[in-house]
Amino acid sequence: MTRAAIDQVGLDTGKQARLHDILYRNGLRNGTAIFLPYDQGLEHGPRDFFANPAASDPRYVLDLAVEGGFNGVVLQIGLAEKFFAEYAGEIPLVLKLNGKTDIPPDGEALSPLHASVEDAVRLGAHAVGYTLYVGTPAVESDFAQYRQVRADARRLGMPLIVWAYPRGSAIEAKGGKDSFYAVDYAARTASELGADVVKVNFPHPEKREHVKAEYDTGFSARQAIDAVVRSANRTMLLVSGGTRAGDEAMLEKARQSMEAGATGLIFGRNVWQREHDESLRFVERLRGILEKFPVPARSR
Amino acid sequence: MTRAAIDQVGLDTGKQARLHDILYRNGLRNGTAIFLPYDQGLEHGPRDFFANPAASDPRYVLDLAVEGGFNGVVLQIGLAEKFFAEYAGEIPLVLKLNGKTDIPPDGEALSPLHASVEDAVRLGAHAVGYTLYVGTPAVESDFAQYRQVRADARRLGMPLIVWAYPRGSAIEAKGGKDSFYAVDYAARTASELGADVVKVNFPHPEKREHVKAEYDTGFSARQAIDAVVRSANRTMLLVSGGTRAGDEAMLEKARQSMEAGATGLIFGRNVWQREHDESLRFVERLRGILEKFPVPARSR
Amino acid sequence: MTRAAIDQVGLDTGKQARLHDILYRNGLRNGTAIFLPYDQGLEHGPRDFFANPAASDPRYVLDLAVEGGFNGVVLQIGLAEKFFAEYAGEIPLVLKLNGKTDIPPDGEALSPLHASVEDAVRLGAHAVGYTLYVGTPAVESDFAQYRQVRADARRLGMPLIVWAYPRGSAIEAKGGKDSFYAVDYAARTASELGADVVKVNFPHPEKREHVKAEYDTGFSARQAIDAVVRSANRTMLLVSGGTRAGDEAMLEKARQSMEAGATGLIFGRNVWQREHDESLRFVERLRGILEKFPVPARSR
Amino acid sequence: MTRAAIDQVGLDTGKQARLHDILYRNGLRNGTAIFLPYDQGLEHGPRDFFANPAASDPRYVLDLAVEGGFNGVVLQIGLAEKFFAEYAGEIPLVLKLNGKTDIPPDGEALSPLHASVEDAVRLGAHAVGYTLYVGTPAVESDFAQYRQVRADARRLGMPLIVWAYPRGSAIEAKGGKDSFYAVDYAARTASELGADVVKVNFPHPEKREHVKAEYDTGFSARQAIDAVVRSANRTMLLVSGGTRAGDEAMLEKARQSMEAGATGLIFGRNVWQREHDESLRFVERLRGILEKFPVPARSR
Amino acid sequence: MTRAAIDQVGLDTGKQARLHDILYRNGLRNGTAIFLPYDQGLEHGPRDFFANPAASDPRYVLDLAVEGGFNGVVLQIGLAEKFFAEYAGEIPLVLKLNGKTDIPPDGEALSPLHASVEDAVRLGAHAVGYTLYVGTPAVESDFAQYRQVRADARRLGMPLIVWAYPRGSAIEAKGGKDSFYAVDYAARTASELGADVVKVNFPHPEKREHVKAEYDTGFSARQAIDAVVRSANRTMLLVSGGTRAGDEAMLEKARQSMEAGATGLIFGRNVWQREHDESLRFVERLRGILEKFPVPARSR
Repeated sequence: MTRAAIDQVGLDTGKQARLHDILYRNGLRNGTAIFLPYDQGLEHGPRDFFANPAASDPRYVLDLAVEGGFNGVVLQIGLAEKFFAEYAGEIPLVLKLNGKTDIPPDGEALSPLHASVEDAVRLGAHAVGYTLYVGTPAVESDFAQYRQVRADARRLGMPLIVWAYPRGSAIEAKGGKDSFYAVDYAARTASELGADVVKVNFPHPEKREHVKAEYDTGFSARQAIDAVVRSANRTMLLVSGGTRAGDEAMLEKARQSMEAGATGLIFGRNVWQREHDESLRFVERLRGILEKFPVPARSR
Repeated sequence: MTRAAIDQVGLDTGKQARLHDILYRNGLRNGTAIFLPYDQGLEHGPRDFFANPAASDPRYVLDLAVEGGFNGVVLQIGLAEKFFAEYAGEIPLVLKLNGKTDIPPDGEALSPLHASVEDAVRLGAHAVGYTLYVGTPAVESDFAQYRQVRADARRLGMPLIVWAYPRGSAIEAKGGKDSFYAVDYAARTASELGADVVKVNFPHPEKREHVKAEYDTGFSARQAIDAVVRSANRTMLLVSGGTRAGDEAMLEKARQSMEAGATGLIFGRNVWQREHDESLRFVERLRGILEKFPVPARSR
Repeated sequence: MTRAAIDQVGLDTGKQARLHDILYRNGLRNGTAIFLPYDQGLEHGPRDFFANPAASDPRYVLDLAVEGGFNGVVLQIGLAEKFFAEYAGEIPLVLKLNGKTDIPPDGEALSPLHASVEDAVRLGAHAVGYTLYVGTPAVESDFAQYRQVRADARRLGMPLIVWAYPRGSAIEAKGGKDSFYAVDYAARTASELGADVVKVNFPHPEKREHVKAEYDTGFSARQAIDAVVRSANRTMLLVSGGTRAGDEAMLEKARQSMEAGATGLIFGRNVWQREHDESLRFVERLRGILEKFPVPARSR
Repeated sequence: MTRAAIDQVGLDTGKQARLHDILYRNGLRNGTAIFLPYDQGLEHGPRDFFANPAASDPRYVLDLAVEGGFNGVVLQIGLAEKFFAEYAGEIPLVLKLNGKTDIPPDGEALSPLHASVEDAVRLGAHAVGYTLYVGTPAVESDFAQYRQVRADARRLGMPLIVWAYPRGSAIEAKGGKDSFYAVDYAARTASELGADVVKVNFPHPEKREHVKAEYDTGFSARQAIDAVVRSANRTMLLVSGGTRAGDEAMLEKARQSMEAGATGLIFGRNVWQREHDESLRFVERLRGILEKFPVPARSR
Repeated sequence: MTRAAIDQVGLDTGKQARLHDILYRNGLRNGTAIFLPYDQGLEHGPRDFFANPAASDPRYVLDLAVEGGFNGVVLQIGLAEKFFAEYAGEIPLVLKLNGKTDIPPDGEALSPLHASVEDAVRLGAHAVGYTLYVGTPAVESDFAQYRQVRADARRLGMPLIVWAYPRGSAIEAKGGKDSFYAVDYAARTASELGADVVKVNFPHPEKREHVKAEYDTGFSARQAIDAVVRSANRTMLLVSGGTRAGDEAMLEKARQSMEAGATGLIFGRNVWQREHDESLRFVERLRGILEKFPVPARSR
């Protein structure tokens, strides 16, 4: 699928300006993007840093983001306020507006707000992030929070990146959060509800237990990611690295995603859970893939 | 039943202006209407597009709406913001203000708000849509949302179309969501609570298990739809196509509804879940029915 | 100069939708427009109706607007609320938001607000009108009013037509309100301050007394109107008929304006200050001019 | 005087981020700046374009800003909304929040607000501009407007550039708006009242008639600009080109300003009131000066 | 780990001013701190005063805070309003904004707000305290309260001290509230969510039952507190005394904490649950430890 230029997808001036900066004045400057998320200290706790204790220090990760040529770094409000000033202007900030710990069970998952779109503006961020738990029974609170975020993001010209995560007891009962069924539905939900960019996990068509009948057939991984990109239509798609896994498998997924029409990648633990130079080498391989999928900056 | 002219049903100037545009400057221009809803990607997920993958692309469906001579197209906020500008002025937009996925169970169904009447005004929409889950235990949140929507729609002269859907565990226990009992009650609820237009499913008088005694007798389908139109009184009534079914049965229901005094139809999956030209042929047959039920634009 | 399509001039979805309706679903439906203003009863008093007393009745003028195939009619809030419902949907309404009598002298001219953009939305209007007195010493109040109108119009997707009228003692001392200098400055001011459409009087390059040196040379009428259209850049330009004058001169000015790149005309007294059928014949001649300057509805 | 790094002057994260982008990711990327102001169509009228009619088209000037390697372009809200989307991300926007025509006399000069800091955020601007008429009798309205702008700019992390213009009858009576006395006082006023950047005209120490005694001595031009930079202290200083004048004199003033510690220049008419290639050659000479005054991006 | 100076950790002016006062004009005036919390009457009830009934009188404890050379005293709103005026200016007040009794079980622990940041300003407090129950199922309410407190503290320049307490059924099932796993996660959560100072219990690495695998290895106490300080990064860390325990063990924990990079201690019951002079002697020993870990007031 051909990726659309950012002036073709119904974006206001401010969102265009900030996305243009992310996509054409950072990273490979070719319209693709790779983001470095760094909110796992909240989402999973400091245990995620045990593989590489240096990564516990936000400066280590921010330096990595700059050195590695990332298009943006994702932080929660606390780290953004304490650390971003020193990197302001050197790399775009995506302020993650909600988040939660992984301590209570996920059956009725909800990710409470910690910051506002106005906080993001104040900090000079280039985009905001919101985790939407598609399928959670706590949907009323989740959608109410989201609605305000979406309206504020539109009012202030701030691109909205939705972490579209299938979650909750009903999802667990229908193929789980990584099934093709769940990921496809999550991508479409983000698009229908006005995300500018959507982050999804790579879909697993082989996870078919109790999914809707339409998904219970022999789709290939490539067919699945193709469908997910179509479901997202004009919402740009980022594929998440998730738990650190084998490099070759990760790179293959990244390649398939870009071929399917994704805009880019969002890789955290796969990057900073290894030694510094090894991180950079891995990022270089990811960039090598993105390099092959340039998107023109303007449609005319 | 004779349909009233729009200057006879207590509407303010702005609502009259917008409805006149929908009913007399679009579609057959004879006071009837056929709407194309396209929010199933959220309500049911992308699986609804598997029958005709082209329909996953909003542009395909918007083109169909223009080519088919529909009176309006129904979109959620995300697709409206990303796609409608290209069709603005060519077909009226009905902005659907609330919506939900079908992932969690429906026992306490609630459709959270995603957009405001002011969003609809800003996008140049001709009407707003709201799903009211008549009978749900989550009635407090549902009616609270609805109350605000109704008040805003009145303040801004925006016609309010209510998707009056019987839903929730108590409905399931009393004949189900398509029973004559449930549909009739839903139509009346919308009318009592100030809808300008109400969308209902075609009533099934044969679904009588555990319905109130008054409905537990031998009503015909025609008697049922007559009653539903009377229950709606000055609230214009649209009959929904629902899940794709046999064409002849659908056309017969459409004919009976118009004879009963309905203002029109709202058919989505029955239209775009087939191949393009076949869609247009089916729409042509629906228009052939509407053609026979003109309503004068002015009462004097 | 080539007129731009309405999807090329930086307009939001709602403004595009409403302008598309005015320009392509009314009048000649070719992207040009002719408006019928009817606020002279306030601006000049009933004396304007003495030439044709029938025109004192708003219905007479509204009927004329429909019969004559105008693209819109301009009313103050009082007449809009009392008369527009009967014409709603048949012709676009431009709600004039401010206005004043001509009783006090114009040295410190200010046109106070009488209605809001929200009133226009509520009445189903397609645009709002605001008189900006460019050059008036009362600029602080004028710009403060205008700023709120502009912001509301943007928020609600309502096209903003600015009556850009040079006025005040300083203007009188520098060539007067119809001088090329004054009209050119007024068109630019409207464009710089965010008008979507600007209404100007036809510029008089021969009025050179005390104008800025740059304008004190031998410009032709055609050169003047060309310059004014350029000064307005992406703000669509309407040329006003003003005081009723000789038909051939009026038609020549209309032709020159359209050749220069104007979007259309706004003619009131020249139309309704004559007998009914004569009015329609004159309008027909104006339409004959507009017919020759079609603008494509979409740039792609 | 040594220019301070932007992390040493008491700026919040967002202001640092946006200024870093302006100063180190645009133009010469060395901490100096040259801005292209384009609001003269409002401030003086279209006559400013007569020397080079192409400059009447905002696209011409925006293209020039990109080609010439400016650090930012200054627009009023109307042109920003209609034209900036096409350049978004390619050059920083400074949204000028207030402005006026030059038609009424300047004795009680006041520049009314036309847009808000929130508009600037929404459009993805990098800074806002406000004209403060230092010395005007209309000081109450002026300072009241300014106070709100300053507070909003702080709340939203938006750098505030103050056009510090001595103006009004009292200034005319004491040496005039370009006197060393007036410019020095204006620079200090901006600093005392919280400007992040101040734009001043080059001071004329020889304009001594009726100035305060302290200024009525034989200061050199260099002494004057040195003093003005000191008066501005941590408020970065931009020197304005003003009316187009002889190139060598302009370049000499630019050089003296940078030697004195100015951050950069803001040149409009001197640039675009000449033929295209000649404009670029003149800009190249200005850049040649700025090149010699780099400021490190971080203090540590 | 080297403690950062307060001008290096991303704090606004007001927070810097208040923290400088706490850290360099009170206590040892060397950048370390020891706080005296006195909200146990609410949190545990008067039973905490039975060991030393004199401590039931707030004046007794406030006198002790002054005599002992504490850097601040922590009070709930009621005691602050009734008693602090008499000590105002003699010792900094930390107003604890939320609190609860220990009567209901802690499975869904939530500490409701009793006062606002504005109350703290009004009382001349130097900081506010908030108890965040990390891991509680009542996370939605807890984070919503906290979010408002954080935003208000930022707006008003008030340092925010977070009592980061692991709590709730899920915590009890995974090692308990004092486990290294739980304390480490709590410190990080406070840092990610924008605490300026975080109060934690000393971590117990030997509590390993059902903790995440990463923590289920043989960490020493010193390794644990080192990790917790790193997890808190630029959020200053205070170690809590908790339930009164053996003095030598307490002092050893204090020493290890300071060596690890903590900013100070917060000791209540260990201090005032003994006889007056003995309290002072114990405090003197704590100060003897802090004396060895000075932090420079300015980084340059």
